[in-house]
Amino acid sequence: MKSHREVLTFTIPARRAFINITGRVEEALAQSGIREGLCLVNAMHITASVFINDDEPGLHQDYEQWLEKLAPHEPVSAYRHNRTGEDNGDAHLKRQVMGREVVVAVTGGKLDFGPWEQIFYGEFDGRRAKRVLIKIIGE
Amino acid sequence: MKSHREVLTFTIPARRAFINITGRVEEALAQSGIREGLCLVNAMHITASVFINDDEPGLHQDYEQWLEKLAPHEPVSAYRHNRTGEDNGDAHLKRQVMGREVVVAVTGGKLDFGPWEQIFYGEFDGRRAKRVLIKIIGE
Amino acid sequence: MKSHREVLTFTIPARRAFINITGRVEEALAQSGIREGLCLVNAMHITASVFINDDEPGLHQDYEQWLEKLAPHEPVSAYRHNRTGEDNGDAHLKRQVMGREVVVAVTGGKLDFGPWEQIFYGEFDGRRAKRVLIKIIGE
Repeated sequence: MKSHREVLTFTIPARRAFINITGRVEEALAQSGIREGLCLVNAMHITASVFINDDEPGLHQDYEQWLEKLAPHEPVSAYRHNRTGEDNGDAHLKRQVMGREVVVAVTGGKLDFGPWEQIFYGEFDGRRAKRVLIKIIGE
Repeated sequence: MKSHREVLTFTIPARRAFINITGRVEEALAQSGIREGLCLVNAMHITASVFINDDEPGLHQDYEQWLEKLAPHEPVSAYRHNRTGEDNGDAHLKRQVMGREVVVAVTGGKLDFGPWEQIFYGEFDGRRAKRVLIKIIGE
Repeated sequence: MKSHREVLTFTIPARRAFINITGRVEEALAQSGIREGLCLVNAMHITASVFINDDEPGLHQDYEQWLEKLAPHEPVSAYRHNRTGEDNGDAHLKRQVMGREVVVAVTGGKLDFGPWEQIFYGEFDGRRAKRVLIKIIGE
């Protein structure tokens, strides 16, 4: 069994954004030399997500609006977590809806994807350096 | 390390449905000959889910109603994604709540499940052929 | 390839609670002797979650309140599932928001975590013995 580890770092200038990281994961997979296995991609921070969906800007605006409705940023005093001095209580909730990680099959040295599957980093509390872990195991 | 790949195809006549696919995953596992490892099952389309819960029809109606409340299909004009000519904006949101994939432990050649765990395909934009990927790695 | 399996049992005296199980997963990993691989941790019951987030009591109260708003326990008659004689319809919904499982990279014999990542068992229908499965594969 082979394994390969890589870390991506993102400093998003806004509080929230969705970034397509599919190309970066494909590069890590090519580096690994693994042909058959599983590829884990996860946010290493707890106010961010890694998820798979469509690379369509209208959909990303829909996600943004919907997550704000499910877990609004304001008023920050609505979250007990924010009594610790943080203002990111909402980001911890949004991240649970969108998920921490994806596991992708590796087949014939490629990410084994359907036609529209793309991997995104979802930032809900940006403006500082945050990391994504890629771990691939297989042969 | 061994690996095994299988694809299931579903053409659901309705827009939405939940289909128990546990038996199909068990068949793939038996085919693989893998005794110890991990089994990934994921929707290959971005308006569908694979998830684990109870095979109880009342619960599935509860999920249907709840998801419609969290992300209603109508009015379709409420989703920017639908300006692309689609009417499935809601399906992309529902899929995030229910999840893209499950990873199941394989122990002694069986899916290592609790008493009520069953694997479901969740369709949120049916009426066309869509695929589920099974990838098993182990020994 | 090596594999290691362990089961944790929890009997939570209340209906709902969040329990930090990171130390228990670290012990299982140490027992396994695995240095590079993947670690799956999942609830074996369908009204409970395993998820990764922050060990901060205010945040856990925020989760509790938010989940009650998204899928209230009362009135129990609002859930068709409860016509089977259960009163845990809400718990099946809450578990979908928080997730069934996490997959964690194993690197150098350790859980490969960001600074705040901790693994939690989320109970939504307690007061009886329920299980969490740990399955680690690698080398």
